[in-house]
Amino acid sequence: MITLEQPFAIYLGNVQNPLDAKTGFGLAQWRPAECVAQIKRRTCSVDLGIPSMNIAQAQAAGAKTLIIGVAPSGGTLPHSWQEDVLTAIEAGLHVASGLHQRLNQIPELVKAAERSGSHLIDVRDTDRIFNVASGRKRSGKRILTVGTDCCVGKKYSALAIHRALVEDGVNVDFRASGQTGILINGAGIPIDAVISDFISGAAEELSPDNDADHWDVIEGQGAIYHPGYAAVTLGLLHGSQPDALVLCHDHGRNEIDEYPDFPIPSIEDHLQHYLILARLTNKNVRWAGICLNTSHVHPDDRQNVLDEYRRLYKMPCVDPLIDGVDDIIQQLHQY
Amino acid sequence: MITLEQPFAIYLGNVQNPLDAKTGFGLAQWRPAECVAQIKRRTCSVDLGIPSMNIAQAQAAGAKTLIIGVAPSGGTLPHSWQEDVLTAIEAGLHVASGLHQRLNQIPELVKAAERSGSHLIDVRDTDRIFNVASGRKRSGKRILTVGTDCCVGKKYSALAIHRALVEDGVNVDFRASGQTGILINGAGIPIDAVISDFISGAAEELSPDNDADHWDVIEGQGAIYHPGYAAVTLGLLHGSQPDALVLCHDHGRNEIDEYPDFPIPSIEDHLQHYLILARLTNKNVRWAGICLNTSHVHPDDRQNVLDEYRRLYKMPCVDPLIDGVDDIIQQLHQY
Repeated sequence: MITLEQPFAIYLGNVQNPLDAKTGFGLAQWRPAECVAQIKRRTCSVDLGIPSMNIAQAQAAGAKTLIIGVAPSGGTLPHSWQEDVLTAIEAGLHVASGLHQRLNQIPELVKAAERSGSHLIDVRDTDRIFNVASGRKRSGKRILTVGTDCCVGKKYSALAIHRALVEDGVNVDFRASGQTGILINGAGIPIDAVISDFISGAAEELSPDNDADHWDVIEGQGAIYHPGYAAVTLGLLHGSQPDALVLCHDHGRNEIDEYPDFPIPSIEDHLQHYLILARLTNKNVRWAGICLNTSHVHPDDRQNVLDEYRRLYKMPCVDPLIDGVDDIIQQLHQY
Repeated sequence: MITLEQPFAIYLGNVQNPLDAKTGFGLAQWRPAECVAQIKRRTCSVDLGIPSMNIAQAQAAGAKTLIIGVAPSGGTLPHSWQEDVLTAIEAGLHVASGLHQRLNQIPELVKAAERSGSHLIDVRDTDRIFNVASGRKRSGKRILTVGTDCCVGKKYSALAIHRALVEDGVNVDFRASGQTGILINGAGIPIDAVISDFISGAAEELSPDNDADHWDVIEGQGAIYHPGYAAVTLGLLHGSQPDALVLCHDHGRNEIDEYPDFPIPSIEDHLQHYLILARLTNKNVRWAGICLNTSHVHPDDRQNVLDEYRRLYKMPCVDPLIDGVDDIIQQLHQY
């Protein structure tokens, strides 16, 4: 588990494509009170809707940790960004990153951090050894978001469900399993960076024994019909031992993103298949609902589409961005 | 891919339980011509059936590489063994190990190896980054052994099938996916030690494009209903894109070893479930047969048991240790 000192300044470098700034947007959306500044180079065209500052200004505004809010392709820190990070370290800020390239493996940054006393936090670092999963049933209740593909709203849906349960006064924790989720939550385990033998063991550790009325809302990863990531999905599913599953789907997406030879099987198939696999470690698992991304649906058709899902699959179906997740929360109160 | 200089001396330390010497037995059985010696401490009660020597004698007999033939519980090298390994290094032998603890992380051994020019080969080391699986169909033919549990004969069956195909003059390679298989084969990828995100990508790399008539015989890992290792099994299955599957089962084993709460589902269930999962990356996958461990069956009942499997599942069923794998090879010639 990692801990990030608050509040944060979000570093965006000179990013042009909002999709590359997923981490920054996630932080600005889910931890607005802790995000005091965005720090951009002159050519950056992305805006998180929070005050733009330089490093000195952000520090004056109280920022304690600079978070790299961008995932550049290749997962490495461009040289110009590295200079900005160095400036932040020299000013005494901690720096957190979810990149494949580790801050702690860049000697210049490590030396500067030693001098200033800054912490360099690599969220994807999991050099530690986890246990092989025991399969032992744990106390407390768990809900896991699963998907028909990557980037269909598993993290967003889990965060929305967590927030709604908090507002209902439920005893609940969000459990982050990916780098952006970990940066938003300040804690978690980057499941996709764990050694394969220990993936379900790491997932067991992510949601430990808890009070009987406690909910863990676990952020899902990958998709069970994804030719690259299905193993990550299955390992997280088995170790999580979910009581409730939520299926996340992007309505209108017909094939796995960037895998044109891999059509996405039907919703019905997913509802059956995930349940069969999840029953290995929790016989009582059931569906709590569907979170549908309707951003590709014409606004006039949206309600019909949602109604059709509800009718066909006999469970709540919401677009969490538009409808909220109350219908799913209703289900959870029956567990 | 790793390369081991031949011939080998097998180090057994003071091991008492033959099951702990699985790697040593595998090497003695599958590479007898290369195993010139076993090296044991005085209290070792295990015997591989090859000449016992000390390090100087083994070297005089031609040994170039000392292979740690034991997996001590905890995966670390006991101090007394470490002294023996040091002696071997000082004598100029290379040392290979599949332990979790890396030879290359024991400073005393590393220093000695620098002086003597010995190579320290950690078979489980996979610090390198693999690609995420592409799902692209590769040329050539592939057979993968899969199991109903760990330790049911997946490695043995794959090696037996490989040997039979070699004897038939078929263009074939054995593809090792675990540490013992890699030590036997001299090459391979330790799939269970790969970062989860890249497991199917590593499996794709293990059996690359090949001639249309070429077979890769891929050593399976774990089991699809294993609460700890199913993710490893699925990742290897998807990346291997097998044309043929062989199910390995220990007749009479009713629950996952060391997981008494996890009964092993029926053979029929396994035959269906593996096929459904494998079809994601190869629509044409089919069963080539069942390799049954009949060591817990009374010799008088053995033939009846095998006949019953053949009748029920309508495919070859052999105990590869007793019957050989000819019936399965017959099937492969029809691919």
